[in-house]
Amino acid sequence: MLELRLVQGSLLKKVMEAIKDLVNDANFDCSASGFSLQAMDSSHVALVALLLRSEGFEHYRCDRNISMGMNLNNMSKMLKCASNDDIITIKADDGSDTVTFMFESPTQDKIADFEMKLMDIDSEHLGIPEAEYHAIVRMPSSEFARICKDLSSIGDTVVISVTKEGVKFSTRGDIGTANVVCRQNTTVDKPEEATVIEMNEPVSLTFALRYMNSFTKATPLSNTVTLSLSSELPVVVEYKIAEMGYIRFYLAPKIEEDDEEMKP
Amino acid sequence: MLELRLVQGSLLKKVMEAIKDLVNDANFDCSASGFSLQAMDSSHVALVALLLRSEGFEHYRCDRNISMGMNLNNMSKMLKCASNDDIITIKADDGSDTVTFMFESPTQDKIADFEMKLMDIDSEHLGIPEAEYHAIVRMPSSEFARICKDLSSIGDTVVISVTKEGVKFSTRGDIGTANVVCRQNTTVDKPEEATVIEMNEPVSLTFALRYMNSFTKATPLSNTVTLSLSSELPVVVEYKIAEMGYIRFYLAPKIEEDDEEMKP
Amino acid sequence: MLELRLVQGSLLKKVMEAIKDLVNDANFDCSASGFSLQAMDSSHVALVALLLRSEGFEHYRCDRNISMGMNLNNMSKMLKCASNDDIITIKADDGSDTVTFMFESPTQDKIADFEMKLMDIDSEHLGIPEAEYHAIVRMPSSEFARICKDLSSIGDTVVISVTKEGVKFSTRGDIGTANVVCRQNTTVDKPEEATVIEMNEPVSLTFALRYMNSFTKATPLSNTVTLSLSSELPVVVEYKIAEMGYIRFYLAPKIEEDDEEMKP
Repeated sequence: MLELRLVQGSLLKKVMEAIKDLVNDANFDCSASGFSLQAMDSSHVALVALLLRSEGFEHYRCDRNISMGMNLNNMSKMLKCASNDDIITIKADDGSDTVTFMFESPTQDKIADFEMKLMDIDSEHLGIPEAEYHAIVRMPSSEFARICKDLSSIGDTVVISVTKEGVKFSTRGDIGTANVVCRQNTTVDKPEEATVIEMNEPVSLTFALRYMNSFTKATPLSNTVTLSLSSELPVVVEYKIAEMGYIRFYLAPKIEEDDEEMKP
Repeated sequence: MLELRLVQGSLLKKVMEAIKDLVNDANFDCSASGFSLQAMDSSHVALVALLLRSEGFEHYRCDRNISMGMNLNNMSKMLKCASNDDIITIKADDGSDTVTFMFESPTQDKIADFEMKLMDIDSEHLGIPEAEYHAIVRMPSSEFARICKDLSSIGDTVVISVTKEGVKFSTRGDIGTANVVCRQNTTVDKPEEATVIEMNEPVSLTFALRYMNSFTKATPLSNTVTLSLSSELPVVVEYKIAEMGYIRFYLAPKIEEDDEEMKP
Repeated sequence: MLELRLVQGSLLKKVMEAIKDLVNDANFDCSASGFSLQAMDSSHVALVALLLRSEGFEHYRCDRNISMGMNLNNMSKMLKCASNDDIITIKADDGSDTVTFMFESPTQDKIADFEMKLMDIDSEHLGIPEAEYHAIVRMPSSEFARICKDLSSIGDTVVISVTKEGVKFSTRGDIGTANVVCRQNTTVDKPEEATVIEMNEPVSLTFALRYMNSFTKATPLSNTVTLSLSSELPVVVEYKIAEMGYIRFYLAPKIEEDDEEMKP
């Protein structure tokens, strides 16, 4: 028996919008500690990891660990039918091959339940070790989204370079080049507007803008985004979900620049 | 000689938006009592009936009963050129094959007239008898529109079931099932937010969501919608037009459920 | 060495939106007096002339006259990456085949530079003589835009007729005819809402609505538009750019009505 009641139902709607274009089908894993998901994107390049801790739910009952395979597009269709102020409850009986999403309006005058068939999905859970990063950048999530969108009108890849002074996003395309520099800036009125850089050593890495733009669909979930960069590791783009957990995207850097040097 | 002056011109624009996708060509009937229309939709499944009573017009002159055949798409193109606060006058000379729509800005600084050719349209006026209904549901029009839209992302038909406690809208599709229950609720701050059920006997009927969604284009005309349901009659979906009349849509129930029972 | 710093960067973005659909490639001419452009539209029917006077820039350095050929679509892509409150600087080194657009956020925390390749464009600068016009109409730019848009849902051309009382815009199409009259009106609360007519003699001219609609993309640049009409000259549709200059569109009248008279 599974029954998870989330007063802030709009949060679940935003989570679906953040991942449904990246991942088609995925297993949601429920345990006593929380509701989580780990999945590769459909082209097996990026990894997304979601955690919603049990403490964040108004009511959380999960008698035994279960893994529920869902088509994210269908799940998103159903969650779109919840109003933004609805309370959402996820329910599943033991051994059932369906999951039910219940939406209650704040006044309790309207109650909807949507039942969806579960799927069998093969997946292996990757262990993601804690790692040391060369540089960690925290910045406003809307700023990061704007920069990724702007640069993708010029080129296909972005070089992210971090120094003590700031973080630079660069691209190059047929029509020209673009560089955007965000300076370290911690003396702002609102903490969520700060750009904070923790750096052990300078780093400069290249990524596909297509994936970065896809990650920024999580922007409504958090005012800030954190980029953790290291030359030997995938970048981690993390959006914290207030009091509940996070959504993290992992993407390996391109080694394009070396490729070009090797060309005759 | 016909001359109908409507101060609240935006109302006529909303009427056109409500019916132009359902009906291509139709006769508008003018008499001393009002301006009305009755037409089948282009697939001859649904019926729409409009009445704007003469008392609702600032000036209403109709010397003799006339029937004016109009292409609703073209009429809508012209009415879209009226600003929302314009006064609209509909004019036609006796025996003329054109109708003129005049738009006056509130300051009288801008005056537009649009002349449209009339058409000959064969149509029979159906007598719609007053009937007793098993159940009448009055609910917020935006709520009804939202439910029809939400359910059509899951299935093609809606089962509307009324009991004393509330009205249930259900559908079923490839990705799962959905039920939305609106409880009777008369103790609301604003009367237009109430859900009121008058029931003689329980009723459960199936309708094509495509038509229901089309009817909800009339939502801007009224805060509330009334559904009149009976097992032997078409449902009536009525939007009252304040102080002037109404727009009513009639749709026969599907007998799909019986069909399924008969399958071997 | 060229360096033009414009605090009100959004103005340059609006200029690009006003002309980029009309003109593909054009030379921007820089001199001590200002930044200007003159170009035919891609079908060689309309002419656009832009002037931004040097006094309007916060900083204006132009060591020698230069002409910079730019693809307006690419330039627009880059300027769209500037935020509306960014300061924009246009920079070019002597003899360089590139131009740089620099965007500074008001707080100086974000600085972007976009470099674009210049093009060689053949163009002849037309001398446009000062002329006497039969009639000059000044009216709210949003009103003019609305009329051009409305009429193009009915017909392809607009007849603009000016008398002492007002200006009339007429069209005719398959579905009917339309006339919109704006009366001379100088006693309004806000000067930008006035419709002012200076007339030496009545004039009635026909223009392609496609071009008029294209010109109205400049509407965000100014609250008012001025139409200068004469039977022997192209109409001038002018949008003033506050304290800096103007954007002017020139379009020759159609002689359609004479054509029709000549038909057997």
